[in-house]
Amino acid sequence: MASLQDIGMSAAINILSALSFLVAFALLRLQPINDRVYFPKWYLKGIRGSPTKSGGLVKNVVNLDLKTYIKFLNWMPAALNMPEPELTEHAGLDSTAFMRIYLLGLKIFIPITLLAFVVLVPVNWTGNTLERIKDLTFSNIDKLSISNVPPGSNRFWAHLLMSYVFSYWTCYVLYYEYKTIASLRLRYLASENRRPDQFTVLVKNVPPDPDESVSEHVEHFFCVNHPDHYLMHHVVYNANNLAKLVAKKKSLQNWLVYYQNKHERHPTKKPTTKTGLWGLWGSRVDAVGYYTAEISKLNQEENAERERVASDPTATVPAAFVSFKTRWGAAVCAQTQQSSNPTIWLTEWAPQPRDVFWDNLAIPYVELSVRRLLMAICLFLLTFFFMIPIAFVQSLANIEGIMKVLPFLKPLIEKKVVKSVIQGFLPGIVLKIFLILLPTILMTMSRIEGFTSLSSLERRSAEKYHLFILVNVFLGSIVTGTAFQQLEKFINEPSTEFTKTIGVSIPMKATFFMTYVMVDGWAGVAAEILRLVPLVMFHLKNTFLVKTEEDREQAMDPGCLDFATSEPRIQLYFLIGLVYSVITPVLLPFIVVFFAFSYMVFRHQIINVYDQKYESAAAFWPQVHKRVITGLIISQLLLMGLFSTKGVAKSTLLLIAQPIMTFWFHRLCKGRFETAFMKLPLQEAMVKDTLEKATEPNLNLRAYLKDAYVHPVFKGGELERPVAIDEEENSPLVATKRNSYRSSRHDSDASSEVGV
Amino acid sequence: MASLQDIGMSAAINILSALSFLVAFALLRLQPINDRVYFPKWYLKGIRGSPTKSGGLVKNVVNLDLKTYIKFLNWMPAALNMPEPELTEHAGLDSTAFMRIYLLGLKIFIPITLLAFVVLVPVNWTGNTLERIKDLTFSNIDKLSISNVPPGSNRFWAHLLMSYVFSYWTCYVLYYEYKTIASLRLRYLASENRRPDQFTVLVKNVPPDPDESVSEHVEHFFCVNHPDHYLMHHVVYNANNLAKLVAKKKSLQNWLVYYQNKHERHPTKKPTTKTGLWGLWGSRVDAVGYYTAEISKLNQEENAERERVASDPTATVPAAFVSFKTRWGAAVCAQTQQSSNPTIWLTEWAPQPRDVFWDNLAIPYVELSVRRLLMAICLFLLTFFFMIPIAFVQSLANIEGIMKVLPFLKPLIEKKVVKSVIQGFLPGIVLKIFLILLPTILMTMSRIEGFTSLSSLERRSAEKYHLFILVNVFLGSIVTGTAFQQLEKFINEPSTEFTKTIGVSIPMKATFFMTYVMVDGWAGVAAEILRLVPLVMFHLKNTFLVKTEEDREQAMDPGCLDFATSEPRIQLYFLIGLVYSVITPVLLPFIVVFFAFSYMVFRHQIINVYDQKYESAAAFWPQVHKRVITGLIISQLLLMGLFSTKGVAKSTLLLIAQPIMTFWFHRLCKGRFETAFMKLPLQEAMVKDTLEKATEPNLNLRAYLKDAYVHPVFKGGELERPVAIDEEENSPLVATKRNSYRSSRHDSDASSEVGV
Repeated sequence: MASLQDIGMSAAINILSALSFLVAFALLRLQPINDRVYFPKWYLKGIRGSPTKSGGLVKNVVNLDLKTYIKFLNWMPAALNMPEPELTEHAGLDSTAFMRIYLLGLKIFIPITLLAFVVLVPVNWTGNTLERIKDLTFSNIDKLSISNVPPGSNRFWAHLLMSYVFSYWTCYVLYYEYKTIASLRLRYLASENRRPDQFTVLVKNVPPDPDESVSEHVEHFFCVNHPDHYLMHHVVYNANNLAKLVAKKKSLQNWLVYYQNKHERHPTKKPTTKTGLWGLWGSRVDAVGYYTAEISKLNQEENAERERVASDPTATVPAAFVSFKTRWGAAVCAQTQQSSNPTIWLTEWAPQPRDVFWDNLAIPYVELSVRRLLMAICLFLLTFFFMIPIAFVQSLANIEGIMKVLPFLKPLIEKKVVKSVIQGFLPGIVLKIFLILLPTILMTMSRIEGFTSLSSLERRSAEKYHLFILVNVFLGSIVTGTAFQQLEKFINEPSTEFTKTIGVSIPMKATFFMTYVMVDGWAGVAAEILRLVPLVMFHLKNTFLVKTEEDREQAMDPGCLDFATSEPRIQLYFLIGLVYSVITPVLLPFIVVFFAFSYMVFRHQIINVYDQKYESAAAFWPQVHKRVITGLIISQLLLMGLFSTKGVAKSTLLLIAQPIMTFWFHRLCKGRFETAFMKLPLQEAMVKDTLEKATEPNLNLRAYLKDAYVHPVFKGGELERPVAIDEEENSPLVATKRNSYRSSRHDSDASSEVGV
Repeated sequence: MASLQDIGMSAAINILSALSFLVAFALLRLQPINDRVYFPKWYLKGIRGSPTKSGGLVKNVVNLDLKTYIKFLNWMPAALNMPEPELTEHAGLDSTAFMRIYLLGLKIFIPITLLAFVVLVPVNWTGNTLERIKDLTFSNIDKLSISNVPPGSNRFWAHLLMSYVFSYWTCYVLYYEYKTIASLRLRYLASENRRPDQFTVLVKNVPPDPDESVSEHVEHFFCVNHPDHYLMHHVVYNANNLAKLVAKKKSLQNWLVYYQNKHERHPTKKPTTKTGLWGLWGSRVDAVGYYTAEISKLNQEENAERERVASDPTATVPAAFVSFKTRWGAAVCAQTQQSSNPTIWLTEWAPQPRDVFWDNLAIPYVELSVRRLLMAICLFLLTFFFMIPIAFVQSLANIEGIMKVLPFLKPLIEKKVVKSVIQGFLPGIVLKIFLILLPTILMTMSRIEGFTSLSSLERRSAEKYHLFILVNVFLGSIVTGTAFQQLEKFINEPSTEFTKTIGVSIPMKATFFMTYVMVDGWAGVAAEILRLVPLVMFHLKNTFLVKTEEDREQAMDPGCLDFATSEPRIQLYFLIGLVYSVITPVLLPFIVVFFAFSYMVFRHQIINVYDQKYESAAAFWPQVHKRVITGLIISQLLLMGLFSTKGVAKSTLLLIAQPIMTFWFHRLCKGRFETAFMKLPLQEAMVKDTLEKATEPNLNLRAYLKDAYVHPVFKGGELERPVAIDEEENSPLVATKRNSYRSSRHDSDASSEVGV
């Protein structure tokens, strides 16, 4: 086991690397040329313009104002300064709620850390067991852990009591956090302006009718069954072909703009291009004329396809977005069962238009059920047997294999250095590639499961990723051997024995997890702020590919909070913290530092960088809550396993109430708050309807909703702008407040950072 | 293990006792004096009158028509004759659906039995393993079971295949049965006449309001949030005191009628009574005058209390029955969330007025949650540790204990015969008393859990009882030792080991279960038709207590299908049948006979005896389905355990898909059908509303609903008559059909049985 010195060394290395990332970030972000990498959010909001429009060339690339370099950490207070309500307005409730996960970590672990250091560390330190056992090597860290308490000692009462206190505190914080988020969500939904999804319900599994088209059938059904509330509907077209044509046209239009710009700059020289692949082959023609002709040809094709889709009854899928005259009507329809056959006319809240996952709207009920079964089996196999294909690939990807397939590399490979590098790194690289691909694999699996919105796809993937991390990272680190071997053990050993095995090995793995927290948590988060990949990609694109201003806009990759991968990783820290809170309290400060540092970094990213693809109004919180509870119960069970080996079997009986109470607490919270994330209460809907009727009696809702749920390709090939934001701009109250913040912030940013 | 002869002997005894029950029943039911015991249903329907009204005394007590004795089994075809739709009209859908549980058993097990006898019995018989092992005693029955197949034999493929075939067949039958019941339910609900609960929603957890009473608060809330649909509401009064007064008055009224009758018969002698307890002490007064005075006094008290309850705001509980103008409005309200706080304004379908369990309407949300947790823990303790208090009582109730407490019994007890009887029977009696009390205990637990309707209370109790039977009867018979010891084993052994232990001992217990089926299933069901306890009770009451015609009406105890205890017992037969279908197919015919015989007996009882307390329209079917699936999965797991000890470990891998597929099938069915038992689809509601609007445009719904959900005590002390039946009488179409059936049936009954 690693000693205190080893841990100190590791800490020093990781802190240094984190610091170097931060310094690099501080330097890079001050360069105007990187402005679009580090502040894309403000560009997207239309507040910052491209720096190329003003000032000289050098000034636009490098920041020469030395003053600004001195205060290179001043982004930190800036990130923390924005109050929460403004953050919600600026980036949406999803981002705010995501920040509150880190805050939750701080709220749970700071008091636990203090209490553990006051009570448990002295109790452990004076246990003096390890010193008495001569043939055992131990470190100072072990002397602070539960291992230092002699078996059967009365000191374990302190641990038992603290375990209850920690569990109680965690539940207490979780409860109030759930409550806060639920009320934040309701307030957010209530304060929102009119949005199409408030009036709209997604109807799936429209039954086929021999006499009517899908559109007529939907109209008749809702006219009959919701006569006072039904307003209109959009059928969903199967527009794959059209989407391809639109994408092709868009690329041609970009080229046209590029050549037109070129021609304008050099009016004497007519730009030419070749007609073949990528402009490299074929006969040389006049570029502007060629592209204009191509586009008009494509326009005709597109119009024909558009007409075909609109008129061909087989081009519609049996699903529709049905809109109602009032929010009340939509709430009613979304929450009730329409037909006596519960597999047809399924209704649910329509996702935001930008959140719709169009491909999955037309899956029949039984097929959906089969898909979910298959994916559940796949997930099981992936979680427990993923090492088998990896080991297979690793066995292929050795020196002999490479030499066989690519014999011309033989002289190179036979060099000793290269050989050892391949032998040492290749297996690791294969595993790493798999781990990088994993989120994509999981997302694909979720897509196959047939969820209809991006947000639900992400939540589902997060669930899968959490299971994978739990089994393969957490359990895998504690119990040696593959997940499959663990599974075998779990089946063939008594369940108590399994818990004991893990419980006993936990204290020994404390230093490993300390190092893990430092590498993955500290240095990893610091790397996140540097945005190395987007930085490199942006400059590559900017140099080689950017032809028009629009291209530059697209080369800018703001990214977003990737819930599907980030959240399960945070959950791992919750789990580690909860497990070690009683066993090895010295680990806790590392967790606290992780949460604090991440909070700061991601708050900065949310304010300045990320652009969320959708807004689900914190719909993910029930999952976050559930996973922290899962972690808590796991920690309680493992503590029971550990205690039962410590000669205090009776206290194990006292501990058994803990998981039961925690599970009950989970049920209580679920009943108390979860519906707030699923359903819109009729009372809220009615209040908004009444208010709207009073303030805008002449609103033409039909016109407002006309194009809301049209497949993006029918909107002339442009991806729609989020409507909510456009709406916000028109609301004087909100806009004033934000605009004033924006301009002041922009001014201060501009003066302090870019020096314009 | 019992040999074929032993089983034959046991079968003979049980068949004889079943036959003697049937003969006794055939004789007793023909006596007019027992008419109210064996045909109470027809009295309650008002079709049969009391036999005392016509004919001589002897003819009214004993049936002298010898012809009728010859055809003493003619109730059997009569019971099977009534077609299912008429049975539903006669006794309600609950009874029909309950009969379909037995039919389900027949549908599942008859084909399985045939197939097993054609395929598995020959395979087992020719296995010849047991004969080769010399030092093993075995019976012919064992030679027909899987034990006779040598380990590692290829013959096991037959069992494996059959296991899949049986599982598939069970699921197939279950699926179509679920589908049938769901459509029966929907048709039943659709064909029903207007009923108050169709328009009414039960609103619980009305939040307190400082300015308004509960009634005003409810009215305002629903006027605002369901403006187009809200009609009226009934608040729920806390009427415990009033109920007591009403009960007292009723008893006094009975006495008054009794004395008035007495006086009429002997006009010369004025009946007197004593004013003290039970008319045994105190001064002698004129009875009629005394009771008239007492009743008028009580009337005043009752009126005062009635006024107090109606005017005192603290006498209302925070719950209400809210009625809507249309079924659509009620369906919407019952299925949606009203308030942003999901623990207040909870809405659910109102139970039928006669189904309401009034005591549980006012439990706050968190208290409900705590109660459920406590009851879950109690259920666990009861299931696994119930032997501890019983053993304690048994240890007290021995010879020495009795002699200590009741020393005067000493000479009696010291006689050898008495002593051995006490020692032999007392412990058994203590256990038996517990088992008789068990359903009451479980029902009390369900009441504490706070369900608001009798039907849900019964369903919940059935769930608990099923668990108890599963653990203590099924597992308890297979694995020796108490449930607690099993639990210990289960925790301390690997889970596979536990399955193996049980799997191995299953074939050895086949004869035990055969005897069990015969004793509990055959003879027990035959005893049910004799109705020994109601018979004795009726004659006792009739002789000593009956004073008025009304009393006689009440002395008649029709009983009802007790879902909470009967259904879990049937499930045990499903479980035994499924478990042994592959292992010891000879057991299957016993199960088939049980299902067929029970079907006949209970069909007769439903037609002639039982009077259901409520009608839930087969709302229990999802539970029945779930428990059969549970039994199926248990049987599959046990087969896996058995196979893994038979040297065919590879086939265990093939078997693992079975429980997974079955579980998935359960999920599929749940999604496909369960909502039909939970929610009323809007389409159905709309159809009924539209129809009603067309046929009865001037309906005064407010007047119709006026008294529907008033606490029974506010209806002048009478328990309300089920409204549905009264309604039915008014509908000419249905009534004609039934009345014609009734009269013809009554005629034939009367002529063939009573001989009038």
